[in-house]
Amino acid sequence: MNSIQATIITIGDELLIGQVIDTNSAYIAQALNKIGVSVSNRIAVGDSKEAIIDALNNASANNNVVILTGGLGPTADDITKPLLNEYFGGKMVIHQPTLEHITDIFVNKHKRPMIDRNRKQAEVPDVCEVLFNETGTAPGMLFKKDGVFYFSLPGVPHEMRFLTDKHVIPTIQNSFTTQPILHRTLLTAGIGESFLAELIADLENELPSFIKLAYLPNFGMVRLRLTATGKDENELTTNINAAFAKLKLAVAEYLVTDQDENMEVVVGKLLKQNNQTVSTAESCTGGYIGHLLSKHGGSSQFYTGGIISYDNRIKTEFLNVPEHILQTVGAVSQEAVEQMAKSVRESMKTDFAVSVSGIMGPSGQTDEKPLGMVWIGVASKEKVVSKVFYLRFDRLRNIEVTANQAINLLRLLIINKI
Amino acid sequence: MNSIQATIITIGDELLIGQVIDTNSAYIAQALNKIGVSVSNRIAVGDSKEAIIDALNNASANNNVVILTGGLGPTADDITKPLLNEYFGGKMVIHQPTLEHITDIFVNKHKRPMIDRNRKQAEVPDVCEVLFNETGTAPGMLFKKDGVFYFSLPGVPHEMRFLTDKHVIPTIQNSFTTQPILHRTLLTAGIGESFLAELIADLENELPSFIKLAYLPNFGMVRLRLTATGKDENELTTNINAAFAKLKLAVAEYLVTDQDENMEVVVGKLLKQNNQTVSTAESCTGGYIGHLLSKHGGSSQFYTGGIISYDNRIKTEFLNVPEHILQTVGAVSQEAVEQMAKSVRESMKTDFAVSVSGIMGPSGQTDEKPLGMVWIGVASKEKVVSKVFYLRFDRLRNIEVTANQAINLLRLLIINKI
Repeated sequence: MNSIQATIITIGDELLIGQVIDTNSAYIAQALNKIGVSVSNRIAVGDSKEAIIDALNNASANNNVVILTGGLGPTADDITKPLLNEYFGGKMVIHQPTLEHITDIFVNKHKRPMIDRNRKQAEVPDVCEVLFNETGTAPGMLFKKDGVFYFSLPGVPHEMRFLTDKHVIPTIQNSFTTQPILHRTLLTAGIGESFLAELIADLENELPSFIKLAYLPNFGMVRLRLTATGKDENELTTNINAAFAKLKLAVAEYLVTDQDENMEVVVGKLLKQNNQTVSTAESCTGGYIGHLLSKHGGSSQFYTGGIISYDNRIKTEFLNVPEHILQTVGAVSQEAVEQMAKSVRESMKTDFAVSVSGIMGPSGQTDEKPLGMVWIGVASKEKVVSKVFYLRFDRLRNIEVTANQAINLLRLLIINKI
Repeated sequence: MNSIQATIITIGDELLIGQVIDTNSAYIAQALNKIGVSVSNRIAVGDSKEAIIDALNNASANNNVVILTGGLGPTADDITKPLLNEYFGGKMVIHQPTLEHITDIFVNKHKRPMIDRNRKQAEVPDVCEVLFNETGTAPGMLFKKDGVFYFSLPGVPHEMRFLTDKHVIPTIQNSFTTQPILHRTLLTAGIGESFLAELIADLENELPSFIKLAYLPNFGMVRLRLTATGKDENELTTNINAAFAKLKLAVAEYLVTDQDENMEVVVGKLLKQNNQTVSTAESCTGGYIGHLLSKHGGSSQFYTGGIISYDNRIKTEFLNVPEHILQTVGAVSQEAVEQMAKSVRESMKTDFAVSVSGIMGPSGQTDEKPLGMVWIGVASKEKVVSKVFYLRFDRLRNIEVTANQAINLLRLLIINKI
């Protein structure tokens, strides 16, 4: 049983001039990995016939599966479909179910007349299997040649995701025997990458050759991932579980979760378990903590709401931060964030609250308060705890790190570690 | 004068299993493009010696510049530095300024003893030029071979950005004569991609061969980009400006901005120009609108704050949405969002306000209110306007689209178009 290899080709000039960030590749890679298909590489090319054909030729040499995204839209810069038609020697024909589906979208949903350009979306090469796209107007396509499967998907993320889940993954599972790849991931907080590496150096050296360890630092926290590849899934499972158990023990003091999940998901689970709620009072993060807490389904069970007190006036009028605090120690202070957390918890009647106030950049610093200085406060019925951080990133990164550290501090309060 | 070509190689298993999204490539591509270097492709490979060497060999054939990111950390899965040392036939030596810099970070800033692993970060191949990294412990490196420049940068985004701006771009500008690439981008709202394509079909056909048009749909809005490449920058400028002027005229009815900027930046500029302020009342977006309005520098000039009324109780207690509205027409209703916008504007004393309430999924729908149904309200001193949307994406995407459409509705109110 050989390992099934795949490559992902993303198409679009916008990827090469950096106008958009490619999130599709990560989604597809994740889905393939879960079923034991390893991704040999990912390549992004422009809307250029030569570049796409080059990528296709290279891809077919070493892979069983090639996944292309992008270039299937209704406009002239979308060249993938005619190109694939030519590459695989087909001719264009109307796909009747897709035509009916497009007609329905335009005539019944959008209440707009359909134009030729929309009708053309229903044309497909006669040498492909159509992957019916319920979520949009561009059908997915599957071509097979010399044992290699070529999937062509629209670049619109939610359409790509739909077709990946509904067609690509099941088709691969039915057509190939895949080799197991197992991952175990944990998240640590409160220890830097190099110190963590020292802590687990012996353990890392003892790992069998078929298990790899990766360090994934983000938001001032480090994720560790074990990956095992091999033939016998049972044996792999036993081995990776044993190594993972040792790893968890070694980092126990810093362990946030032994699942591949984000900090806010960990905290959401804790709150739901305990039937508890949280509210937020955000200055410098401007709503980002609220966004993290509410971006996952089911968050209304624990997230009650918040005050975004961007202007100091809102801190006084909505969060009872006394004028004299703002005028003496200022809004970026222990006194201010503690009052903010306390007030919002009381007024929103929640079990916990989290608050932040800081200087995110690119300006706003003073002699005493440098760029990146941020106070974080958390409150429960019993106590209010706060901590100061000095960040050294750009504005957006400072916001993201602050929000993640704030949610971590909330976690420590919930589990009684501060 | 030939066009200078570059390729970007991102290194890390996490990219191939989809655990992280690659934002580095987009940043580098944008920076290269600005100085007239075109990116031929981007490739992501794993932490594998063979894969990296393969990518390096392929890259050197057709490119003047190769940029690698990742694999420079202090841990065992970071293999880029020894690999490049071997590839370019060097030997490892200590880089004294970097060693002093690392020592300073650990001893003076972190107040932690430095360990061997940290000291090793200061080792570099003697065949490279060191790109001093003020922002972190891993130095950047520049290798030159057969006229090709190879830059190796850390994968940590803010360090990569610093080294790109400080070293990579100036070095390329000093060493190569680049060919001009010009872009003009505009943003439309309120018209679908295929209808837009019809509207500008003649114009698109008339474009000279050295100007390309691209459609970039996002958040239910479409961005149009013209790209001109050629030899004579003055001639290119004249031509692209003429084509862009026609394009603007053709889409005037739907034009949001003729700059490559996001919706929230457009609205921020409008408010700053007019010395006006805005507040937010968010239910289903949970703070994401506040985040968009405050993520850019200078937003405290126009963004006052907001209420995140995730729980219905907060809608009543903080936004005066009457109980009977919640009990009859419900929280996802015209009545509720209009009251939310009105209340937050008055209580936060701002010129404008924006509010949202909807069903983002994956559950929460009722017979009358489907998943993806969202009401958006905007208020000024003179009036309150609201609009209903039916979205068909997943939860996160619904949140993003809602926030962008809400800010667009705010824009229309500010410029008196609704």
